[in-house]
Amino acid sequence: MSLSEAATVHSTAPASHPVRIATIGAGRIGSNHAEIVARLIPGASLVAVSDPVGESAQRLATALGAPIATATVDDVLTSDEVDAVLITAPARSHTDLVVAAAAAGKHVFVEKPMAVTLADADRAIAAAADAGIVLQVGFNRRFAPGFAAARAAIDAQKVGTPQLLRSLTRDPGPYTADPARVPQWTIFLETLIHDFDTLCFLNPGARPVRVHAVADALVRPDAKSSGHLDTAVVTVQFDNGAIATAEASFSALYGYDVRAEVFGSGGMITAGSGLSTDMTYYGPDGLHADTARRDTDLLHSAYVGELTAFVDAIRTHTPAVVTGHDARTALSIALAAVRSVETGSAVDLDR
Amino acid sequence: MSLSEAATVHSTAPASHPVRIATIGAGRIGSNHAEIVARLIPGASLVAVSDPVGESAQRLATALGAPIATATVDDVLTSDEVDAVLITAPARSHTDLVVAAAAAGKHVFVEKPMAVTLADADRAIAAAADAGIVLQVGFNRRFAPGFAAARAAIDAQKVGTPQLLRSLTRDPGPYTADPARVPQWTIFLETLIHDFDTLCFLNPGARPVRVHAVADALVRPDAKSSGHLDTAVVTVQFDNGAIATAEASFSALYGYDVRAEVFGSGGMITAGSGLSTDMTYYGPDGLHADTARRDTDLLHSAYVGELTAFVDAIRTHTPAVVTGHDARTALSIALAAVRSVETGSAVDLDR
Amino acid sequence: MSLSEAATVHSTAPASHPVRIATIGAGRIGSNHAEIVARLIPGASLVAVSDPVGESAQRLATALGAPIATATVDDVLTSDEVDAVLITAPARSHTDLVVAAAAAGKHVFVEKPMAVTLADADRAIAAAADAGIVLQVGFNRRFAPGFAAARAAIDAQKVGTPQLLRSLTRDPGPYTADPARVPQWTIFLETLIHDFDTLCFLNPGARPVRVHAVADALVRPDAKSSGHLDTAVVTVQFDNGAIATAEASFSALYGYDVRAEVFGSGGMITAGSGLSTDMTYYGPDGLHADTARRDTDLLHSAYVGELTAFVDAIRTHTPAVVTGHDARTALSIALAAVRSVETGSAVDLDR
Amino acid sequence: MSLSEAATVHSTAPASHPVRIATIGAGRIGSNHAEIVARLIPGASLVAVSDPVGESAQRLATALGAPIATATVDDVLTSDEVDAVLITAPARSHTDLVVAAAAAGKHVFVEKPMAVTLADADRAIAAAADAGIVLQVGFNRRFAPGFAAARAAIDAQKVGTPQLLRSLTRDPGPYTADPARVPQWTIFLETLIHDFDTLCFLNPGARPVRVHAVADALVRPDAKSSGHLDTAVVTVQFDNGAIATAEASFSALYGYDVRAEVFGSGGMITAGSGLSTDMTYYGPDGLHADTARRDTDLLHSAYVGELTAFVDAIRTHTPAVVTGHDARTALSIALAAVRSVETGSAVDLDR
Repeated sequence: MSLSEAATVHSTAPASHPVRIATIGAGRIGSNHAEIVARLIPGASLVAVSDPVGESAQRLATALGAPIATATVDDVLTSDEVDAVLITAPARSHTDLVVAAAAAGKHVFVEKPMAVTLADADRAIAAAADAGIVLQVGFNRRFAPGFAAARAAIDAQKVGTPQLLRSLTRDPGPYTADPARVPQWTIFLETLIHDFDTLCFLNPGARPVRVHAVADALVRPDAKSSGHLDTAVVTVQFDNGAIATAEASFSALYGYDVRAEVFGSGGMITAGSGLSTDMTYYGPDGLHADTARRDTDLLHSAYVGELTAFVDAIRTHTPAVVTGHDARTALSIALAAVRSVETGSAVDLDR
Repeated sequence: MSLSEAATVHSTAPASHPVRIATIGAGRIGSNHAEIVARLIPGASLVAVSDPVGESAQRLATALGAPIATATVDDVLTSDEVDAVLITAPARSHTDLVVAAAAAGKHVFVEKPMAVTLADADRAIAAAADAGIVLQVGFNRRFAPGFAAARAAIDAQKVGTPQLLRSLTRDPGPYTADPARVPQWTIFLETLIHDFDTLCFLNPGARPVRVHAVADALVRPDAKSSGHLDTAVVTVQFDNGAIATAEASFSALYGYDVRAEVFGSGGMITAGSGLSTDMTYYGPDGLHADTARRDTDLLHSAYVGELTAFVDAIRTHTPAVVTGHDARTALSIALAAVRSVETGSAVDLDR
Repeated sequence: MSLSEAATVHSTAPASHPVRIATIGAGRIGSNHAEIVARLIPGASLVAVSDPVGESAQRLATALGAPIATATVDDVLTSDEVDAVLITAPARSHTDLVVAAAAAGKHVFVEKPMAVTLADADRAIAAAADAGIVLQVGFNRRFAPGFAAARAAIDAQKVGTPQLLRSLTRDPGPYTADPARVPQWTIFLETLIHDFDTLCFLNPGARPVRVHAVADALVRPDAKSSGHLDTAVVTVQFDNGAIATAEASFSALYGYDVRAEVFGSGGMITAGSGLSTDMTYYGPDGLHADTARRDTDLLHSAYVGELTAFVDAIRTHTPAVVTGHDARTALSIALAAVRSVETGSAVDLDR
Repeated sequence: MSLSEAATVHSTAPASHPVRIATIGAGRIGSNHAEIVARLIPGASLVAVSDPVGESAQRLATALGAPIATATVDDVLTSDEVDAVLITAPARSHTDLVVAAAAAGKHVFVEKPMAVTLADADRAIAAAADAGIVLQVGFNRRFAPGFAAARAAIDAQKVGTPQLLRSLTRDPGPYTADPARVPQWTIFLETLIHDFDTLCFLNPGARPVRVHAVADALVRPDAKSSGHLDTAVVTVQFDNGAIATAEASFSALYGYDVRAEVFGSGGMITAGSGLSTDMTYYGPDGLHADTARRDTDLLHSAYVGELTAFVDAIRTHTPAVVTGHDARTALSIALAAVRSVETGSAVDLDR
């Protein structure tokens, strides 16, 4: 007798109940997440793809072997085959989708921003709490190895009390989006929202209290009159005294650039390098190294990490590691930054 | 009607015929490979685990959801449920397992060294050819991002003609193995075999022609009398004039260290950094960064890459990208290095 | 006949008229500059050292072979043996000394800040212009190899139009000064003044137009009530749209840290590493590298460079490369930062 | 009374007896050294320049303000105005010049190689000992900050017992010398001699015992038939078990490359980076940094350091820190490497 029978009993147990996941949105990030779920997350399976463009849904489902493709979100939310959803639809639809999914009893992974108003953030948080579902927000940087190691070092008291922080996001250029189709304040609500969360993540236990922001249209000066801002610097003060800077640009010619720095009474930590491999080339013009061009390359392991954490939280009935409250905090900074640009003054955050 | 039905037709097609893989050997590397196959390789499934220690096989199969666990290789080779095997058994058994697996019509991924004599290497190559199977050898470094990028740059003529090469392997210390249980010449046949292949990989089209080796027992001087060598430097000359150095130690206190350098008429390329993340810490003692401690960390993406390539070769009926001939070439260098140490002289390789 | 006689005629010509320099102030930086002049600047000789503490002056003069040591500035300014002075006295005395030296016809190298009010800055500039002397300000970073290379790359259009800049200064910790003896606003007027100049230097041709500052006592919270600020972040907007951040701390445990970053439409440049040599150590705890502990180590070649430039300007009758106008511009930012902290609002700079 | 008079008494004392130095050879390195002595070494003055091409001597003397220029070495050796000489003449004349200078009672700094036969090395050592002069050899790398820090770390037991070492020299390309004018074995006797000394320097207290060398004409294959070798790899074994590799090429397109690595029971140290500043540029093609093109740039502070040490040894009547014995040891390795190439076998060094 081989050992296989006994083994079978045990080994099929966890595998027989994978978390069945549907993705809502089959765009660039939706496809990235769907592929990760389908291929790289133990204990998860991709069972459905939804996108208003039915063809996109079908193409992605086919490619990844997901049995269901649909143009209708309801098909996903009412399906008994779906345990959890990944919301990667346009940002302004996120809250409604979170609330609907929670009402349907589906666990939710929602791309940032979870909401663009505090009322909506509260609505999403309440819906998740009422439904008792796992609600995780897509602040991917927390799962990037360098950023996670930074936080571990901070927790280990390597930097002492944080005093000066910096987080930046520069999207790869050249910038090709149509400014007319970019919602106003996107740089704060969708781009810098990552940095606002990163600053909180790397200053654990501290609360943001005051925000000053400067923004301009330096990449597309022609679009400034229509309110399109593509370059910004935000100063955030925390209640432990730390002063932080968040910085963003929509167009970095050298690729996707995501970095952080934390300086404190005990030392300094940096995270993020932007390099794509550890290969270096020395040629007639000097040293050269390749840079990462896309977030899905630079942050691949972060994406895998956050989706693994989401599935683990569902399987182990533990709270999400990035919560709706984290999203609300980052949003409160973003909204204060918007107000700061509008008024030209620093803005105090409510308690 | 949802789009799911049409989608189903297409999407289940590839998924319905995954490559069914058994691992022969459930030790450290066997477990690593089995987990990668079970979780991270699209188009593959882990169906069996074999290990002479039945408990080890069962434990691994259970953990990864593989339906078959067995203490007998024959169970695997005779099973209709198995398309391909990963051979991670002790090195000296590799050739016989390759030959048996090929005879059984199973595709083979064999850890290095495929063989420890040229006759065995030829026997493995012939068996694979006769059976028409895919035979891939576990020279993982070819798939490490930095090394792959190095080769791409070399192919793009960035370094011109290679003139000086270097490849090194330093296993993480402190060294805890029992020298009495380490077969003689392991440093050449099992450790530096990686570097010999790397040198050939980074000097494409060139043939090694002459080898000089120096080796000693510097980590465990007490074991030298029994023939245990733990430190070595090998000089390899190629027919395009390039002079290469391969270097190994069994005990690097700072972790697993795998690097290469290629210098040529057009410039220089380096690959490998040894750092585990892009986090840096500046403290009272200066700059600090973490190093990788295990090959399975440092080379994780390389392991995924080589197993993905193996599965792809099977699925697309294309030749393996690392062949038995590559293994034979690296072995010929290793055997010449052994002879060089024995004789104290440089050794010419036969044509 | 040897060739020496003819040679003598030519070779002694330049050497026979070195620029004769006196240093006013024999403290830490005064001593550093005096030693550089005495030993490392071709075409210069240190002829006098002045310090109110006569013993200090004498000790330094003795050590460096300067014939004159005096406790009285007048001795220096009235001496026929002195062509130029280095003003390294306490900051608040700088302007008066510049004016007096100019009136005496001496060329002036003045440590930053040249002045702490705009009226004083104008007074110094006018005095130098009236006297026709060379007036150079000690913005050393312009001469640090990495910063100079950054500017050269910017001039070569490598970054296109600057959009986001950063400059930081962190003094080596732990902080040991007595807060009661540190003049108010020192962090802006004496520390960040370097960064304000660096930002202008790396954004050539642009004019600062708006300043927002945040500052706190995070290193010595106990001294906050007396107005001692040791940590600050300043946002500076320029008329070419660029948004810059300047950041300072009085206490970096890992050493002296001076860096800059310029991001623009064409790419990014960084300058400054903080490492003291190119030696790296990999030990049981990972990678380690030493950091520079003192400005006089990290910026040694910058100090030599700026003093060489000063002497060259005198010898070649060319304008100083860092002028009183540069000092005034940096000061205008510093004063706006002070006002911003006082008012909590951003401050516009006058045209 | 000012303090200047008293000061004068003390301060002129050391300055009144500078070490008066003549340079023998006004070529590229001779000029470099002469300029350093003239400008950058406290307590030294350049009093004479000698070169068989009188015009070269005169031009250099004029530029540096040296009173004596001559085409005749005797003028220098018989001059009462000269305390010490820098020998930067062609390599094969070094020994005779050392002996002659020692006989004339002049302290000697001689560029490597001090000798090209062991008999000559002994002759030079004996001449210096007989005359009681300081004899220092130009192994500049010992004074490069990274290499010096490496040695300090080794002395501090950071790497434990050295087991594997590497030192390399790559001259900046493209190679423009006329092979017909390059003496045979130059790559060992004049280039790798640096690396042989570096390996001894970084393995303190150990003695080289066995050498194996491989060399070829890869830069100028057309010149191989005339014995011109431009690429080499040498393996050196030491009596403490350490195995070292020295590697050289005459043509590195990316600039001058000088690096070392020491691996031992406690960790690893690397020295040398090849980068010219700490500036980095991120552009459309990725990361870029400038490399040093000339030894006189990359090793400038090493040149200053070694000449400062030479002058200090003379002034303080202490032994040279790099001795004739060091030169002899490096030479013994070089000569063994020559013999190894001639015979194709490893060569044992005599005790």
